[in-house]
Amino acid sequence: MIAVVGAGSCDGDTAERAHRVGRLLAQRGAVVVTGGGGGVMEAAARGVRDGRGTVVGVLPGDSRRDGNQYLSIAIATGMGEARNAVIARTCDAMIAVGGEYGTLSEMALALKMGKRVVSLGSWDVDERILRVRSPEQAVGAAMEGARG
Amino acid sequence: MIAVVGAGSCDGDTAERAHRVGRLLAQRGAVVVTGGGGGVMEAAARGVRDGRGTVVGVLPGDSRRDGNQYLSIAIATGMGEARNAVIARTCDAMIAVGGEYGTLSEMALALKMGKRVVSLGSWDVDERILRVRSPEQAVGAAMEGARG
Amino acid sequence: MIAVVGAGSCDGDTAERAHRVGRLLAQRGAVVVTGGGGGVMEAAARGVRDGRGTVVGVLPGDSRRDGNQYLSIAIATGMGEARNAVIARTCDAMIAVGGEYGTLSEMALALKMGKRVVSLGSWDVDERILRVRSPEQAVGAAMEGARG
Amino acid sequence: MIAVVGAGSCDGDTAERAHRVGRLLAQRGAVVVTGGGGGVMEAAARGVRDGRGTVVGVLPGDSRRDGNQYLSIAIATGMGEARNAVIARTCDAMIAVGGEYGTLSEMALALKMGKRVVSLGSWDVDERILRVRSPEQAVGAAMEGARG
Repeated sequence: MIAVVGAGSCDGDTAERAHRVGRLLAQRGAVVVTGGGGGVMEAAARGVRDGRGTVVGVLPGDSRRDGNQYLSIAIATGMGEARNAVIARTCDAMIAVGGEYGTLSEMALALKMGKRVVSLGSWDVDERILRVRSPEQAVGAAMEGARG
Repeated sequence: MIAVVGAGSCDGDTAERAHRVGRLLAQRGAVVVTGGGGGVMEAAARGVRDGRGTVVGVLPGDSRRDGNQYLSIAIATGMGEARNAVIARTCDAMIAVGGEYGTLSEMALALKMGKRVVSLGSWDVDERILRVRSPEQAVGAAMEGARG
Repeated sequence: MIAVVGAGSCDGDTAERAHRVGRLLAQRGAVVVTGGGGGVMEAAARGVRDGRGTVVGVLPGDSRRDGNQYLSIAIATGMGEARNAVIARTCDAMIAVGGEYGTLSEMALALKMGKRVVSLGSWDVDERILRVRSPEQAVGAAMEGARG
Repeated sequence: MIAVVGAGSCDGDTAERAHRVGRLLAQRGAVVVTGGGGGVMEAAARGVRDGRGTVVGVLPGDSRRDGNQYLSIAIATGMGEARNAVIARTCDAMIAVGGEYGTLSEMALALKMGKRVVSLGSWDVDERILRVRSPEQAVGAAMEGARG
């Protein structure tokens, strides 16, 4: 299970990269987990759908209807930002695509929990974060880390 | 999305009813959410698998590996019993099969959130809990409540 | 640390009993934890203040300002009903005064966690719940259970 | 309410700074919230005690006994790292003293929630984090931010 995290709104380039990450993960058989919102989360989920995979959205709010339309499964936690810890806990590795403070918190929690964290144009704040340049590299690094 | 809740260990009769509930829900197209453990949770998940449906386990612990083997998707929350609130929040209706204190807390939370709660040999402590006598009735009542 | 739980709105008799429970707990040196809202939670907190004790409110929402005015310490969890598990987890024993579904969920969680649960006109759904008739008895039973 | 966050173990210099931060906050009338563990959390709590203030520990585990000995109030959340979101949510401003990944997650969550975040030898990863050089400056900046 690979988490794809990033901001709830993003530019077209970032969305395209997130979409490609999602599609590649699906094609390689990973189940994808995201925060279930818009922006990077939606683009990644659309990518998973296009790759005929499974994508779970772990939502902060009270209603599954707040999730984007591409989720295979939406979980309404009603716990706000505390749901970031669930995403970090449940994934085997994490790919961050762009992203803001919420994304940084997810990366930090995943690092704390010993998971591999891959940055595709995201926060580059620690030597343990693997920086990559393409969706292909991101997926390769995450899948390898998840196995470890 | 229908929650099936119950104790982490149970007798054979209860397991058989939980299995039937899970299978019927799957056959009627519901996604099932459970706590992901043993007993009723495992029997229900096995039923969903036999009905070729999807069952999500929202686990209390830190590892997806603690989930039973029949889960389509396991979510490790790392939040202990606080995950009961996630199950109650995310479901459209809940079926309780037997069950102990954890089950009662899930039923109470679902009632608090305005969800329909169906008891199949479970806690009968409030007039808003629908008592039923068979897995078929339980599934019918829950599916109807979820639509409401 | 003793939890006092009950509904967010209540009649005058219930409020008076909650107030007396809070004051007695404070006088006997217990730290009180509540959900921090109105009704029973507010009356109990007012009692603790009148007894010159300490009362912590563990709030469901995002702002400490939502807590009632008598809290010594307000914690804004932002986690909704999942905060009920925090109240049950952190207390040594629980007194329920009246109450609705949220209260029942807290009682069930506390029972699950092996804590003593005392009912003063609250849910009477299990033999392990101690029924009492007065605030004095409630406080006595809870303090004794907390020591155990 | 000011959060003081940092690693669960730390060197003597960092502990001394955390202690001073805690004492100054207490002397200026702030209630301090921490994660309740060792290292920076313990030193800050000791400082609060020495300043005759109030310090709340929001613990990840199931037992209040895991908190350090200087806490005025210990809350056992049983929610693991998800408690970091509670600390970020409940504070008005945050001071990070040194710190590792868990600290970074708390800083990111606080930034996400619009709180002022002050770094005293901690992560310097965003322009919105205020870097300071002394406990006095840290406390001044946090108290000012909390008022804003």
